[in-house]
Amino acid sequence: MYGYLGSMKAKSGHRDEVVAILVSGADGLRAAGCHLYVVGVSESDDQTIHVSEVWDSKAHHDASLQLPETRAAIAKAMPMLTGEFNSHELAIVGGLGVPSTSSPSEN
Amino acid sequence: MYGYLGSMKAKSGHRDEVVAILVSGADGLRAAGCHLYVVGVSESDDQTIHVSEVWDSKAHHDASLQLPETRAAIAKAMPMLTGEFNSHELAIVGGLGVPSTSSPSEN
Repeated sequence: MYGYLGSMKAKSGHRDEVVAILVSGADGLRAAGCHLYVVGVSESDDQTIHVSEVWDSKAHHDASLQLPETRAAIAKAMPMLTGEFNSHELAIVGGLGVPSTSSPSEN
Repeated sequence: MYGYLGSMKAKSGHRDEVVAILVSGADGLRAAGCHLYVVGVSESDDQTIHVSEVWDSKAHHDASLQLPETRAAIAKAMPMLTGEFNSHELAIVGGLGVPSTSSPSEN
């Protein structure tokens, strides 16, 4: 399975609006091959939003970015973001709450 | 809910051993208030291990570090780590695959 750890920065005062957009669309991602889409914020940073995602594959994740609802969400959120993004792409090895496991050398 | 995004670096050649230790103990964390404990590695970095965790609260997470099995796992893994750690503590707002939601101002 494919993991994506992302963070983005919202313009001052807009973090919670962006968070609401991200969370509202999360349930719909299940049908696109998404297992986890966890949105979190820090108490000590009122701009950064962290998203931890687990997908069937990188192809599923990439394809989801073309879904009409995803594109609409991105279009809505983008003006509220500073443009600073960070991400890590991962091979998910296992753990608690993930549906299956693979060896680190797979994926 | 409380989120913990952590990364650690294994000494060269020891990443998969450390990953195996982390994954093997994950199921046991459920009873300690853990909802997600996702272990991932990067294809472009053979030393760094990423862990994304969701817990009922920070207190549950902190208490888990004192469990005998957690202490044993830490003791086993520590000699294989470089000592470089990174972490972010988060308030989990919601998403897909997390059992409940709270507003960013709660936690």
